[in-house]
Amino acid sequence: MAKHVFYHAGCPVCVSAEQDIVTLIGKENVEVVHLGDQKDRVTEADKAGVKSVPALVLEGGNVLHINFGASIEDLKN
Amino acid sequence: MAKHVFYHAGCPVCVSAEQDIVTLIGKENVEVVHLGDQKDRVTEADKAGVKSVPALVLEGGNVLHINFGASIEDLKN
Repeated sequence: MAKHVFYHAGCPVCVSAEQDIVTLIGKENVEVVHLGDQKDRVTEADKAGVKSVPALVLEGGNVLHINFGASIEDLKN
Repeated sequence: MAKHVFYHAGCPVCVSAEQDIVTLIGKENVEVVHLGDQKDRVTEADKAGVKSVPALVLEGGNVLHINFGASIEDLKN
């Protein structure tokens, strides 16, 4: 049974991240949910704390949002 | 030997993500690099394609940026 849930919406960055996550933690450990196709699960994702996709909701309840954020440029100075 | 490299900068979200990643993929499979403490590795991270931290650079070269991105609110409509 899947321990973790990976939510995405079919965008290219989502698909790429999905492949990476599945490779990383093993297909049997992660349930992949396409929120564009499964609109009824958006509420579930929202309640789990998902603020953006792609996101990985861990067994323990923590949410990893996988995305581009602040620039590393700031760390160079 | 570590297969993957997790770059962070000591911010609270980084530390939380680090614990999650280490739990998820196993301590022996990931090298944790604090770019605030190890400034000499910023260039290496940059070359690997890291645009923000926290980020996980996978063995195969893909980079997962872990952060808050676009809102899930957009998916509700």
